[in-house]
Amino acid sequence: MSADPNCIFCKIVAGQIPAQKVFEDDEVLVFKDIQPWAPVHLLLIPKRHIVSMVDVTPAEQALMGKLMVLAPKLMAEAGVTNGFRQVINTGIDGGQEVFHLHMHAVGGPRPWAKA
Amino acid sequence: MSADPNCIFCKIVAGQIPAQKVFEDDEVLVFKDIQPWAPVHLLLIPKRHIVSMVDVTPAEQALMGKLMVLAPKLMAEAGVTNGFRQVINTGIDGGQEVFHLHMHAVGGPRPWAKA
Repeated sequence: MSADPNCIFCKIVAGQIPAQKVFEDDEVLVFKDIQPWAPVHLLLIPKRHIVSMVDVTPAEQALMGKLMVLAPKLMAEAGVTNGFRQVINTGIDGGQEVFHLHMHAVGGPRPWAKA
Repeated sequence: MSADPNCIFCKIVAGQIPAQKVFEDDEVLVFKDIQPWAPVHLLLIPKRHIVSMVDVTPAEQALMGKLMVLAPKLMAEAGVTNGFRQVINTGIDGGQEVFHLHMHAVGGPRPWAKA
């Protein structure tokens, strides 16, 4: 499915819920986490509704590569010069809270390392 | 550069330091972390010496996609059925400890979520 009407991230993609967007193209949306763990905390999502990493198809491998390399670029643009962390949580034991695949990119001075 | 003679992960790739390998092909090596955070803790690395995510070139984007989709497959093969976390640390503030790009894949019952 391309969108789930009950998914908060699909609603952000559709513009039904506001978000502080920092990047957007045909396939990807990036916005600021509303409960940041760190001075800079971005969420990178595919626009289509992929539930989690276990639902990614071989055809979506390139899209995953795109998310991977986009994060460092956006962290640099946000002024993060001394390192950051990329995290993807999958499923219950992975601590996934929103069931629309998303990559956290968190950076800034070290206190957030508790996350 | 393709290998750094002082890099512990390059030495593992070269077979100069032992590791518990779980996957290998021309581009990628996966082995068990010797200081696991979780019941299953794998490290996925490119064989070539890429220092960190800020050093990834556009030509390596596909390789990053490959690491992304390989992790869920290997976690399933390791018997992880209820979720896992993929983490890439970059630089000092990111908590990177070995300066050869690596993705942690950690799974198993929830206690490791402290990581």
